[in-house]
Amino acid sequence: MMRPLNPNMASTFPPPVMEARRWVEGKTFPDTRPLMNLSQAAPVDPPPEGLMQAMAEAILTDPCAHLYGPVLGMDDLRAELAAQWSATYGGTITPAQVAITAGCNQAFTAVMSTLARAGDEVIVPLPFYFNHQMWLDMQGVRAVHLPTGDDLLPDPERAAGLITDRTRAIVLISPNNPAGVEYPPALLAAFRDLARTHGLALIVDETYRDFHSSDDAPHTLFTDPDWDETFIHLYSFSKAYRLTGHRVGAIMAAPERLAQVEKFLDTVAICPPQVGQIGALWGMRNLGDWLAGERMEILARRDAIRQGFGQLPDWQLLGSGAYFAYVRHPFDAPSDAVAKQLVDDASLLVLPGTMFGPLRAAGGTGQAEATLRIAFANADRAGLGDLVSRLGALTV
Amino acid sequence: MMRPLNPNMASTFPPPVMEARRWVEGKTFPDTRPLMNLSQAAPVDPPPEGLMQAMAEAILTDPCAHLYGPVLGMDDLRAELAAQWSATYGGTITPAQVAITAGCNQAFTAVMSTLARAGDEVIVPLPFYFNHQMWLDMQGVRAVHLPTGDDLLPDPERAAGLITDRTRAIVLISPNNPAGVEYPPALLAAFRDLARTHGLALIVDETYRDFHSSDDAPHTLFTDPDWDETFIHLYSFSKAYRLTGHRVGAIMAAPERLAQVEKFLDTVAICPPQVGQIGALWGMRNLGDWLAGERMEILARRDAIRQGFGQLPDWQLLGSGAYFAYVRHPFDAPSDAVAKQLVDDASLLVLPGTMFGPLRAAGGTGQAEATLRIAFANADRAGLGDLVSRLGALTV
Repeated sequence: MMRPLNPNMASTFPPPVMEARRWVEGKTFPDTRPLMNLSQAAPVDPPPEGLMQAMAEAILTDPCAHLYGPVLGMDDLRAELAAQWSATYGGTITPAQVAITAGCNQAFTAVMSTLARAGDEVIVPLPFYFNHQMWLDMQGVRAVHLPTGDDLLPDPERAAGLITDRTRAIVLISPNNPAGVEYPPALLAAFRDLARTHGLALIVDETYRDFHSSDDAPHTLFTDPDWDETFIHLYSFSKAYRLTGHRVGAIMAAPERLAQVEKFLDTVAICPPQVGQIGALWGMRNLGDWLAGERMEILARRDAIRQGFGQLPDWQLLGSGAYFAYVRHPFDAPSDAVAKQLVDDASLLVLPGTMFGPLRAAGGTGQAEATLRIAFANADRAGLGDLVSRLGALTV
Repeated sequence: MMRPLNPNMASTFPPPVMEARRWVEGKTFPDTRPLMNLSQAAPVDPPPEGLMQAMAEAILTDPCAHLYGPVLGMDDLRAELAAQWSATYGGTITPAQVAITAGCNQAFTAVMSTLARAGDEVIVPLPFYFNHQMWLDMQGVRAVHLPTGDDLLPDPERAAGLITDRTRAIVLISPNNPAGVEYPPALLAAFRDLARTHGLALIVDETYRDFHSSDDAPHTLFTDPDWDETFIHLYSFSKAYRLTGHRVGAIMAAPERLAQVEKFLDTVAICPPQVGQIGALWGMRNLGDWLAGERMEILARRDAIRQGFGQLPDWQLLGSGAYFAYVRHPFDAPSDAVAKQLVDDASLLVLPGTMFGPLRAAGGTGQAEATLRIAFANADRAGLGDLVSRLGALTV
């Protein structure tokens, strides 16, 4: 037994994606049915040529690319985000309300650190995003789970019943990871009202916003002139511009909260990687049309997965949107066993619901055992046809 | 008053380097005496041409540069570190005992998270490195300060008197930031023995090891076959290869501790930036001779700063090594006031001792008010001559 060991750290689970990678390590797959890895939301193609050129050029010619930058990120990138977000969401967001982080996970941990400490509580809908749960576990903050039904949408009234004098925040993700559902604007506004009434923060992680199916703004929260008293927005550049390996994300919040965030980021990161920020800024300035096309492609993939699951009567597609499909599998086995079996029987790597929520034995509803998350947007439409064929060929 | 607000976060101080940057914002300096910024250890020149070429090439041709990598870092880089460190330190370090992080600050926060939680205690010599103190504050972990005298070396016997049943670790930095002193191998071994006896971890942050004045290994801790039961080594690529903006550091510790570190890094970082890792690996494989030359240059700068302060009878050079000089100023004012005055009177930005330790009023020894940290290695020898002239011209 290693010592000393922080028991909060010991109590949380190992990284699910790394665990899933181990399920395929050393395995071989038939040429006719190669491994299909839909475990992690990670665009497989490199970024557009112009973006790669811009980053390479910066490395060769811009000394700043190699030096520490401001803790809260490059001024130009903060300003660009403020301007574009103000236009998209129809509200007023100033550069002082924007911070850049080394990815959206870091954005979450930084913001949460300003809100809650050991003994506090945070409300998190089920299924949860595992890294949110892990951070709360590590910090000794209690994640209070808000169950959802087959529509996978959290209910504000049910959430109200979970609020105590230790509650500090409600955390939502829309479009949702892992559930794939888009939270309607009215639902997000209702959660904002609930949070405001109780003096809580409402965090909305919008990592997948660029692939939202609505042509309108995904919500109206920024149109409130006092939005930053309650609402905290999180974003990631990783999916939009295929920059997962460069680590760039963002926070929008009140400037006084960002002053606290700055303490955390200085201590944990010093600054976000400069090359990633340079790439993100170039992307924002030059890839608007390209990204619009990417969105249409991913929406087409969503349609393909909906159509495909329509042909699988034993499976139930509970949610599908942005990057993920969340499905109920037809097997009489818990989802982690099913996921491992799918590696062998279908050359398919997806994550089980057991990675996104408590087991029935631990007070869960059984949703965790019954479900799988499929990062369908990693595959093209032909690949999704293949996926459906593989699932259809399984013996239930 | 913003709410909710984690009181642990509110209680710690804002990032010192960002605060110091604000002291020079909007100021103009005479052409004959331009601003000399010795506030932060940040190599001002870009990395060697070959290293920049290797990173740019990877961006243009290696798809992995843009994709998530393993949470604990690239296998090749872990293996290279294990091999070179084993050779340098004369011990056995396996790749499984190495993890890569997004900088050494992140290495510290990840390791400390596996050791201590709110209510625990960690022993930290004075003057402290501010980001260590900030992390402990944020986490509700009590930093127990170990005062040092004018030699700036911590005393293991005095440390022994500070150990309680809540103590989890002792944190040392050698060569020291901010104090510039190199801890002798015997002193480090004595601390290891103390930590082992009490079942504590001994963390040694060796960010500045590449500029150590000894031609031998800086310590013998790795030669102990059971080193990883007690000793945790931290490293940064930022200074050696001028990669501060790329964020690459490392941890060497027991594999079972790294399994806990992996949880933290997955949640806070997902993976270290890929381009920085590619650069670090290229540097390790190709820049050995170049780095040896860099070391000689920085040692020559150290000699220059020692000689220079010998000509300043009112000033006292307490420590000088690797990147930093730690000096006692001659003014009848606290060091933060002195540092601000130096901006106006000498066009010089350095950090005051008040950023590295408790004030006398808060139970400190007065060391904080009396001292300044000078990141002398940022300046070339001509610049250091200029620095000494500027200080000598001040009215005491």
